[in-house]
Amino acid sequence: MSHLGYHVAIVGATGAVGQQMLKTLERLNFPVKTLLPLSSKRSAGKKVVFKGEELTVQEATPESFEGIQLALFSAGGSVSKALAPEAVKRGAVVVDNTSAYRMAGDVPLVVPEVNEEDLRDHNGIIANPNCSTIQMVAALQPIRQAFGLKRIIVSTYQAVSGAGAEAIDEMYVQSRQVLNNEQVNPEILPVGGDKKHYQIAFNAIPQIDKFQDNGFTFEEVKMIQETKKIMRDQTIQVAATCVRLPVESGHSESVYIEVEKEGVTVPQLREVLQAAPGITLQDDPAQQIYPMAIEAAGKDDVFVGRIRKDLDQEKGFHMWIVADNLLKGAALNSVQIAFSLQKLGLLENQS
Amino acid sequence: MSHLGYHVAIVGATGAVGQQMLKTLERLNFPVKTLLPLSSKRSAGKKVVFKGEELTVQEATPESFEGIQLALFSAGGSVSKALAPEAVKRGAVVVDNTSAYRMAGDVPLVVPEVNEEDLRDHNGIIANPNCSTIQMVAALQPIRQAFGLKRIIVSTYQAVSGAGAEAIDEMYVQSRQVLNNEQVNPEILPVGGDKKHYQIAFNAIPQIDKFQDNGFTFEEVKMIQETKKIMRDQTIQVAATCVRLPVESGHSESVYIEVEKEGVTVPQLREVLQAAPGITLQDDPAQQIYPMAIEAAGKDDVFVGRIRKDLDQEKGFHMWIVADNLLKGAALNSVQIAFSLQKLGLLENQS
Repeated sequence: MSHLGYHVAIVGATGAVGQQMLKTLERLNFPVKTLLPLSSKRSAGKKVVFKGEELTVQEATPESFEGIQLALFSAGGSVSKALAPEAVKRGAVVVDNTSAYRMAGDVPLVVPEVNEEDLRDHNGIIANPNCSTIQMVAALQPIRQAFGLKRIIVSTYQAVSGAGAEAIDEMYVQSRQVLNNEQVNPEILPVGGDKKHYQIAFNAIPQIDKFQDNGFTFEEVKMIQETKKIMRDQTIQVAATCVRLPVESGHSESVYIEVEKEGVTVPQLREVLQAAPGITLQDDPAQQIYPMAIEAAGKDDVFVGRIRKDLDQEKGFHMWIVADNLLKGAALNSVQIAFSLQKLGLLENQS
Repeated sequence: MSHLGYHVAIVGATGAVGQQMLKTLERLNFPVKTLLPLSSKRSAGKKVVFKGEELTVQEATPESFEGIQLALFSAGGSVSKALAPEAVKRGAVVVDNTSAYRMAGDVPLVVPEVNEEDLRDHNGIIANPNCSTIQMVAALQPIRQAFGLKRIIVSTYQAVSGAGAEAIDEMYVQSRQVLNNEQVNPEILPVGGDKKHYQIAFNAIPQIDKFQDNGFTFEEVKMIQETKKIMRDQTIQVAATCVRLPVESGHSESVYIEVEKEGVTVPQLREVLQAAPGITLQDDPAQQIYPMAIEAAGKDDVFVGRIRKDLDQEKGFHMWIVADNLLKGAALNSVQIAFSLQKLGLLENQS
């Protein structure tokens, strides 16, 4: 650990996102003085590694947060609901990667490239948006700033790691079973807590999270509501269809947009995206260059390609947006929020 | 073979679609007097089975079509270009499953549930639409008839069998290699004849067929142009993004539509689809009932679910359309065209 830095807790340190949080804090050299890995009772006692040191995971309790300055939560909504206020009470700033507080009026929902300034309004808790939302707004915000944005219709192609480490295992186990002509017994996907489970191997499942009364899934509702909140514009029309694929990591999105301004061209969109922070343009059809999940996995940026003008709508454009859902979609964005908090002077002094 | 029936040739009898054509002719009991399996020189000499009889595949030449009354082509566009006119010259009616003649002004492009009557205008060749187009127009035509149709935006989730038997093999070989931590060497997908090849196992590739100058792929252009031709309406706005997935058979489509009529409801859409020929409604979110590729594979119908109203556009609706791309998307539709030709008296008398 560093001589100067923050007392940091990771809640859900053994999960798919928690593991990436540890790696990302280390890789980006966030000033950590002490690191406290926390988890549910079930995972307590496991070991995690941070900067070469083996640390024992402890069960998260209200008292765990005594002396903690920054707590990154990614252990499910119920854990965040129970413990994030306890962490705040004890002086920590919480960056929560669950959906528990995202739509709360007094909680900033932040993608630093888009709305870093919203952090100034925080009351202890900052929400990290849904993975599929983050990569989309990161790519669309520079376009919106340059040309305005009226409408978004997105169809997603989402990786199983978004449903946790167990879903990754399930996909690989099922794949092997199909290849060996063995029986497949789905137990987790599409949604661990839902009634029915379906085979993900060599399939596409049009359900992520549970269904709402309006026929949309909660994942789709999240994309719609969070986009409007992050962009601070309730008038943007957003529609989403979210689909789970047999891909380990890397969410892809087929996105249709309508801009406000007239006469916008594909080269102008490319230029704006090329200059945008955290975006890599991969858009050369003649050379078959476009983003793909297996290429984006393990990388920090949001990749954009297949940009083309709609053939009927003068202000309509199509594009393909891909990012690592565990990195920019989760752990990296949380750590970037931590850096932004530090930059804006919103964390306690390092000790 | 039957005592009474037609002299039928299958061009491309050893391919993924050709094999399904043989099975479908047999299963639906199309009146076949003699069946002549044809192929390229490379596959000539192979055996195929039809109604329990083993038949030797012959190399397709102009003379092969002497005495043939019905020829189903599925051996690539160049074969159709060279030999379909030769078959017509010798008195055969050709049902062509390639893209060679689809947009020709004097060639009907037919999905029987949608535009069977167009068959009356044929001049020897009838084109079978692209797989991803067929299932979409089959599902949207009843909606269009009831409520009008202004606009379609579709993102596809397409199976590898659409790229042929070799692409299926490639997907399974690569999947095994990934599971065994072995090197993957893509050679076919996304497009056999294109410059670069990418891993399809555990990935999603946003390219099907080659890129056109406007940034759309040819598959996307096919969906756009063919939909307008089949629906006989050049004013329908159609946009498509076509994506290849690691799925063996069964294309899925996330479809957004805008209808003409005001006040249309989701129950009304369901009612119309439930009454439509060739459509199975699978739409009960509360019970997690929706179409999926692995369920649709091997079935004749087009499956529709996830129907919901757009949250902003009063005339906008979203849905999820799935069908077996080798059956309704290819072989079954070709055989259905043959039945329609017979029904309309457009085939020579059975002999």
